Amino acid sequence: MKALIYRGVGDIALEERPDPQLQAPGDAVVRVLKTTLCGTDLHIIKGDVPTCKPGRILGHEGIGVVEQVGAAVSQFKPGDRVLISCISACGKCDFCRKGMTSHCRTGGWILGHLIDGTQAEKVRIPHADTSLYPIPAGVDDEAMVMLSDILPTGFECGVLNGRVQPGGNVAIVGAGPVGLAALLTAQFYSPARIIMIDLDDNRLEVARRFGASDCINAADSQLLEKVKALTDGLGVDSAVEAVGVPATFSLCENIIAPGGDIAVLGVHGTSVPLHLERLWSHNITLRTRLVDAVTTPLLLKSVQSGKLDPQQLITHRFALADILKAYDTFGKAAQNKALKVIIDA
Amino acid sequence: MKALIYRGVGDIALEERPDPQLQAPGDAVVRVLKTTLCGTDLHIIKGDVPTCKPGRILGHEGIGVVEQVGAAVSQFKPGDRVLISCISACGKCDFCRKGMTSHCRTGGWILGHLIDGTQAEKVRIPHADTSLYPIPAGVDDEAMVMLSDILPTGFECGVLNGRVQPGGNVAIVGAGPVGLAALLTAQFYSPARIIMIDLDDNRLEVARRFGASDCINAADSQLLEKVKALTDGLGVDSAVEAVGVPATFSLCENIIAPGGDIAVLGVHGTSVPLHLERLWSHNITLRTRLVDAVTTPLLLKSVQSGKLDPQQLITHRFALADILKAYDTFGKAAQNKALKVIIDA
Repeated sequence: MKALIYRGVGDIALEERPDPQLQAPGDAVVRVLKTTLCGTDLHIIKGDVPTCKPGRILGHEGIGVVEQVGAAVSQFKPGDRVLISCISACGKCDFCRKGMTSHCRTGGWILGHLIDGTQAEKVRIPHADTSLYPIPAGVDDEAMVMLSDILPTGFECGVLNGRVQPGGNVAIVGAGPVGLAALLTAQFYSPARIIMIDLDDNRLEVARRFGASDCINAADSQLLEKVKALTDGLGVDSAVEAVGVPATFSLCENIIAPGGDIAVLGVHGTSVPLHLERLWSHNITLRTRLVDAVTTPLLLKSVQSGKLDPQQLITHRFALADILKAYDTFGKAAQNKALKVIIDA
Repeated sequence: MKALIYRGVGDIALEERPDPQLQAPGDAVVRVLKTTLCGTDLHIIKGDVPTCKPGRILGHEGIGVVEQVGAAVSQFKPGDRVLISCISACGKCDFCRKGMTSHCRTGGWILGHLIDGTQAEKVRIPHADTSLYPIPAGVDDEAMVMLSDILPTGFECGVLNGRVQPGGNVAIVGAGPVGLAALLTAQFYSPARIIMIDLDDNRLEVARRFGASDCINAADSQLLEKVKALTDGLGVDSAVEAVGVPATFSLCENIIAPGGDIAVLGVHGTSVPLHLERLWSHNITLRTRLVDAVTTPLLLKSVQSGKLDPQQLITHRFALADILKAYDTFGKAAQNKALKVIIDA
């Protein structure tokens, strides 16, 4: 089969690989129909994720059709159309049993990281019963791909961790795909304002179309004053940091209201200064989270009921044969006005 | 009257001052019976709290007898025995109405900070109806003084913010008075283990007497390994930072389990590095809080029912005339084995 291989820092290629085989009784082999690229894949290629070794097939999102299942799989059979979660969960370990599947003892984020992933014609899925979801009839395939990672991540790590509430003021710092996923799902809770902050005016324009009440360019010298003016001088109740660099974290510290919640949604590569000399008495809560993807069923129902339209996030489509072009487009996302790209396998 | 005056950095004195007068209809004047010293008073004297200006009478804790009330005061009358909360609350502003009295628009921590405080024979209490508590008959006076600040602070900022739970593993870093207050009130929730960490073996011995299951000296080169060994290799579910310096915060970051809660109980003077490069995916929650003192009635009932014995925290007693000796003793607390000192006014 064809598969996208991480060969080392800055080096990926589409190669021929043997088809994956069942390795454990809980495994399934899934023929991939559609997959996508994630900012995390770019981090791997830059060398930011040393736990991902050269030779790995990348990708942790997608939908497909079950081809084979191991003897212990009871919830899926060959021919079933399935959504592949970015989080593999055994369902049995201490972390899984308390709903923190991101830290599953034999799963978590392993696809396209510690084991071969979905940017290929086929993929082996461990713990299939608790790592796949059936795709109901009548739901759009591309929308489903957005439920593998980006929407549960934006929702769980951004919206839930930011405690977005009716009547609250929310700022989302970073209008890339995951920030926009937070923007879409923040609207479930009818906050009073959602202020989007980004350096790219094109992305802010997209954010406005997606439902932001206010958009401010991060380079605006009046940024802090503008946020204060929108929030009765207090700052925001919820600040979602959706970039992953010290400057955007620092901005969240500066705009959070007393009693507010900061959600760390970005993937960070270095430490950041936490200004406890000011914040110790500010009654704030800060939360981090690797997505558990436990809200996928909820998000699926939101799509079915028309409360959530994930297709808005999709800007480009490529065949698997052209996945290097897809990486090129996604790697220069702002310049190409790219959000999520669909790969047809 | 006699009053302890902050005269400038490193300079305090007992001086004669005019008696306080009612200034607003909601005020009360209280004759102080007992007061105490707080670590925050030492911070002021060191110059760490520039909002506290020279000339200020220090002190934000104590009990007394109401002498005079303004026309708007309806809950107290002259002769009532009262507990003075460290937090003055108007009860009417947006913050007070949502229970965040620490950020009251015309109150918060103002006693002995922005207005004259309790280390005097008398004190003016603004917003008396919502800043004083009646002292029930039969409750020990000295125990009540511990309810002004140290116990609600340990409980709200440490135990509640650390989400201490039955069966959980808790570490409290710092066995000074506020860490010990957290230790006493953490036991309300029957955690599996309470691990106390401090540099002072005497204080650890006190902690053991107060109910710590495990005590580790912070200088122990095997500290991290010992905490891991006590917690199934995972780290603690709740880490309470009760010192206020970067090293103790850093320790909390290093011992927190995935999914755990860090409570910032210490008063911090500088920023600390937050290791998001590791913690972004660790599913942690970090909370800060200036005490709201909204749990004072709950703590009072805990004292009455015998579930909480605040007198354990009291090690020394002085007359107001000797308050400089009290400061000297409390300022070298470890060396004097001092926890809280009672001042009889």
